Amino acid sequence: MASVKVYGPPLSTAVSRVLACLFEKEVEFQIINVEMAKGQHKTPDYLKIQPFGQVPAFQDEQVTLFESRAICRYVSEKYGKQGNKGLFGLDLITKASIDEWVEAEGQSFNPPSSALVFQLAFAPMMKLKQDPNVIKQSEEKLVKVLDVYERRLGESRFLAGEEFTLADLSHLPNTQYLVDRTDKGGLFTERKNVGRWWDEISSRDSWKKVVDMQSLPPKS
Amino acid sequence: MASVKVYGPPLSTAVSRVLACLFEKEVEFQIINVEMAKGQHKTPDYLKIQPFGQVPAFQDEQVTLFESRAICRYVSEKYGKQGNKGLFGLDLITKASIDEWVEAEGQSFNPPSSALVFQLAFAPMMKLKQDPNVIKQSEEKLVKVLDVYERRLGESRFLAGEEFTLADLSHLPNTQYLVDRTDKGGLFTERKNVGRWWDEISSRDSWKKVVDMQSLPPKS
Ligand SMILES: N[C@@H](CCC(=O)N[C@@H](CS)C(=O)NCC(=O)O)C(=O)O
Ligand SMILES: N[C@@H](CCC(=O)N[C@@H](CS)C(=O)NCC(=O)O)C(=O)O
Repeated sequence: MASVKVYGPPLSTAVSRVLACLFEKEVEFQIINVEMAKGQHKTPDYLKIQPFGQVPAFQDEQVTLFESRAICRYVSEKYGKQGNKGLFGLDLITKASIDEWVEAEGQSFNPPSSALVFQLAFAPMMKLKQDPNVIKQSEEKLVKVLDVYERRLGESRFLAGEEFTLADLSHLPNTQYLVDRTDKGGLFTERKNVGRWWDEISSRDSWKKVVDMQSLPPKS
Repeated sequence: MASVKVYGPPLSTAVSRVLACLFEKEVEFQIINVEMAKGQHKTPDYLKIQPFGQVPAFQDEQVTLFESRAICRYVSEKYGKQGNKGLFGLDLITKASIDEWVEAEGQSFNPPSSALVFQLAFAPMMKLKQDPNVIKQSEEKLVKVLDVYERRLGESRFLAGEEFTLADLSHLPNTQYLVDRTDKGGLFTERKNVGRWWDEISSRDSWKKVVDMQSLPPKS
């Protein structure tokens, strides 16, 4: 059995960020099912490894961690010598420039894009009411962020330079849902540089494996 | 002249996060004034170093960076051997556990607390209308986050363990404003463990220097 465990469903964007990283780094792992519909992520045992009661949680022998981006940085460092070796850069300056775009994803891209994913893809599935104001404001914010990305991706092939890194990877989960499961995909695909970038990052083998896992029913 | 430059006013929470880190690491720096009232953060020259048109931007000889938390991680690594040596941990596992709480700050603590700071402290100063819904929802979210912190800080002296680290530092800017300039300070000071923690982290010399800089008028 693989010693690395990821708690939570691959359908969760934060979980799938970690899975993409594990595939890039060729780290074997097992998924531990967390039955969110039954509130298992709010049980005392689960809260010991994820105090906010969210997924994912992560375990690698003695180490337990939460927060998908922190887990990705840890996995990239710990398994530095295997898989995609440059995923988090090989020197301090490259690392910092990857990190600034991982932060930009977490701080600027994720809030509006995860709000849109929730409103447009999940709310209808869960029969929850959509909030037109949230949709409008989130789209406005996302457009501004993507305008910055469009300029940036006119200067370099990927966000942090000429190589695919954690900075790009971190955008895969929300963007996949926006492109596949909402009517907002054009925000990405109709921009010249962002569209080219999206084609390239979404067709990596690592990410295709995650998308495949998302379409399988969870093992019971 | 110090080679490290921080662009932006110390009054900005994201700028002051970086300043606190530089003081902890005993790194000399100069502040480069960015006249936000005049829109200087949206000029083409400034956008070259901070493409989102926000403060702070950071420069250390050839390296320019944005995103306050990425800058703090970089400064902690680059100047690892000086000042507070353990600020970002000394081994991979400690680093990861600091990083998960820096992420928790950025993802869970910052959104509601910066919304409250804006609504309750800055909006009145700028004669902008407050939004009672945003205030209510943000307070509810912050209370839940602080409940998690209260439990955590009952188990360890600081968020990532027994030492003051970047994880704690990252909370200083918003908390200082909430405690000093809004009526929500009790959310912190009236919780046993969070209150004890706040007393301890806010009385560090590094942070007192930042608070002093915030009360000085900007040099012209
Ligand atoms: N910042 C966290 C976010 C985790 C998160 O929001 N997870 C969602 C699923 S994508 C969740 O667990 N939601 C259930 C809840 O918050 O109760 C991370 O990146 O790991
Ligand atoms: N995630 C960024 C946030 C930066 C940020 O929001 N800066 C604010 C001041 S605290 C700003 O520049 N606001 C002006 C604007 O967004 O136009 C960081 O941590 O550096």
